[in-house]
Amino acid sequence: MREPGRMPVVGMIGGGQLARMTQQAAIGLGTPLRVLAASPQDSAALVCADVRIGEHTSAADLRSFAKGCDVVTFDHEHVPPALIEELESAGTICRPGSAALLHAQDKLVMRERLSAIGAPCPRYAPLPADDPMAALRAFADQVGLPLVLKATRGGYDGKGLWILDDLDAGAAALVERLLGEGVALMAEEHVPFRRELAALVARSPHGQGAAYPVVETVQRDGICHEVIAPAPGLEEERAVQAQRLALEIAERLGVTGLLAVELFELESGLVVNELAMRPHNSGHWTIEGARTSQFEQHLRAVLDLPLGSAEPTARHVVMANVLGGDDADIYPRYIHVMARDPAVKVHFYGKQVRLGRKIGHVTALGDDLEETLERARHAAAYLRWGPALGPAEEGR
Amino acid sequence: MREPGRMPVVGMIGGGQLARMTQQAAIGLGTPLRVLAASPQDSAALVCADVRIGEHTSAADLRSFAKGCDVVTFDHEHVPPALIEELESAGTICRPGSAALLHAQDKLVMRERLSAIGAPCPRYAPLPADDPMAALRAFADQVGLPLVLKATRGGYDGKGLWILDDLDAGAAALVERLLGEGVALMAEEHVPFRRELAALVARSPHGQGAAYPVVETVQRDGICHEVIAPAPGLEEERAVQAQRLALEIAERLGVTGLLAVELFELESGLVVNELAMRPHNSGHWTIEGARTSQFEQHLRAVLDLPLGSAEPTARHVVMANVLGGDDADIYPRYIHVMARDPAVKVHFYGKQVRLGRKIGHVTALGDDLEETLERARHAAAYLRWGPALGPAEEGR
Repeated sequence: MREPGRMPVVGMIGGGQLARMTQQAAIGLGTPLRVLAASPQDSAALVCADVRIGEHTSAADLRSFAKGCDVVTFDHEHVPPALIEELESAGTICRPGSAALLHAQDKLVMRERLSAIGAPCPRYAPLPADDPMAALRAFADQVGLPLVLKATRGGYDGKGLWILDDLDAGAAALVERLLGEGVALMAEEHVPFRRELAALVARSPHGQGAAYPVVETVQRDGICHEVIAPAPGLEEERAVQAQRLALEIAERLGVTGLLAVELFELESGLVVNELAMRPHNSGHWTIEGARTSQFEQHLRAVLDLPLGSAEPTARHVVMANVLGGDDADIYPRYIHVMARDPAVKVHFYGKQVRLGRKIGHVTALGDDLEETLERARHAAAYLRWGPALGPAEEGR
Repeated sequence: MREPGRMPVVGMIGGGQLARMTQQAAIGLGTPLRVLAASPQDSAALVCADVRIGEHTSAADLRSFAKGCDVVTFDHEHVPPALIEELESAGTICRPGSAALLHAQDKLVMRERLSAIGAPCPRYAPLPADDPMAALRAFADQVGLPLVLKATRGGYDGKGLWILDDLDAGAAALVERLLGEGVALMAEEHVPFRRELAALVARSPHGQGAAYPVVETVQRDGICHEVIAPAPGLEEERAVQAQRLALEIAERLGVTGLLAVELFELESGLVVNELAMRPHNSGHWTIEGARTSQFEQHLRAVLDLPLGSAEPTARHVVMANVLGGDDADIYPRYIHVMARDPAVKVHFYGKQVRLGRKIGHVTALGDDLEETLERARHAAAYLRWGPALGPAEEGR
């Protein structure tokens, strides 16, 4: 219970860049953010006043963290479902709740539920531990090859996902190894998608919903590379269909907070790829590109405040991720990037630079899509690779 | 010296809302912000990871704070000039430097310098400690009554300023009391201004300048009440004149960082009222209303990074301050304010509510000025006074 005069405290489990950017929004709203970080060097721990160090897999750490939080939410999906249930049993308000969040934690649960409510999905099959190859072969007979093999839990950014071109001895060895390691598996149809889209919505406990414009997301090596808002050339009807689908999934699954629905766009329509129930890489563009950033929106939703306007603030918005390159010294490159384009927005996460690690992003807004794309791409490429390799990286 | 791979640390002396909002920008840029706060409950101390508790009037506290900062800047003007000089002598880079900042700390120094460089000012006169009333009378013979009596140092938000309608016994007693308390005084002409404007610019050490659109500021009881960007009906020529004046003052005074020039608009032209060399209440609208917020701009300037675009993001932007009212419990009012207007942006400073204290602000953006004004005013009035008194406050 909030005493009069005290602002409610939001606790976020996980100290990554999503918690870091949520802190910017929390400062604006005047609602204190408490973060559970694994280390004082975590991205969010570097910029928050109220940081608890602990493990998201420890029931004791979670209990102690939740004490004094008015609501607990998540920077990632890796808190074991049983531990969230335990928090809830002890009276902690978790948003999203464990029952909803499970659909973003377990891909098989998600597929079963989405199929049950009629949401379009690729065909899929669970893989039993006894004779998985027989099940795979039977599934391949239905949907053809290649197939997608997925770990039902714990995958992200292209991890926990394998494309099987053949069901040969190599595939059998992989499946055997994974099952031996205790990784639960499922198979999915490899859908011939035209491109990837994402529909980001928010839902609050009292049932209000808000939908951002549908975006196109471009992945590289399984990692979000750039996001274009709104998705270029997307038919109005299909955009509305994606937003409705996301709002309906949020409603049917009882999501509170943000829900990002990653979609494949096929010739014939849309199918759901993944769900995330938190601020999402596909929504970073909203910091400057929407009237309410996804981070503020998530806070408003989990606090059960009225949701903010999801209207875009520009005709075209492009967000490009900055991945770590060979050179750890990013800061001197700010000079070129900022001098070349005074309107591009640079976001850095305070992370140590490692090859291929998401260390920041840039956002450009504009009236002309090609120009806006070029501006975001140039800035991200330059920050990643430094002067010598900068512009060339775009062509790789 | 910055070692490769380490981001430069900006130290800000003062833990008020300006430092708090600077932290939002520092998080984005990935440049750590260290704050010197008087108390852990200070507005910025509540939201920063790197907080040092100390007094801005203590040489030892300042020295210890500055250690490890790549550059030191200010949330307010109250650091004694001699202490800043001492820091500089010891090798600390202060931006603005003591020589520039003095013009924002001492109104007589400012008037003398501005007059010397030909910047338009009201007429003024220093008041000598011996026979100040004779000097006042002589000045009144030149400029007429009423007169403005000012403390040369330490005033803000209407403090340290008195309007003298008569040079009678009451005025003499006031002057005698102030001089007796060691307050240095000056007199200024009371100019019949039409309205108040503010020109906000940034200047970086390598000499780059950037100017925001000129705004109208509305004061109430000496405190900034609302800001309208751009200033309605301001002739283009006069707006450019104000921007040029501010850029020239920044250049001539050697300002690094932001410079806010508060102006009186007379029938005949503009005169300078006050200077501030830091993020300024008249620039809070830039958080949403300009491509680069004044807080990010100040960081970029003091870090000698290329300045960001000062372009507005909307046709009209209105910022209204929220002052503390009788009821300390602001949070429940978020519900009405946010539900009524999903696009209004609420900023709260984490301060205890006290009558008349600046505790937050709201910003509205729009295509129609009257509607935008109404939205900002309604939100601010409602947050201040609560449901029963909300809308009526606008008429006071």
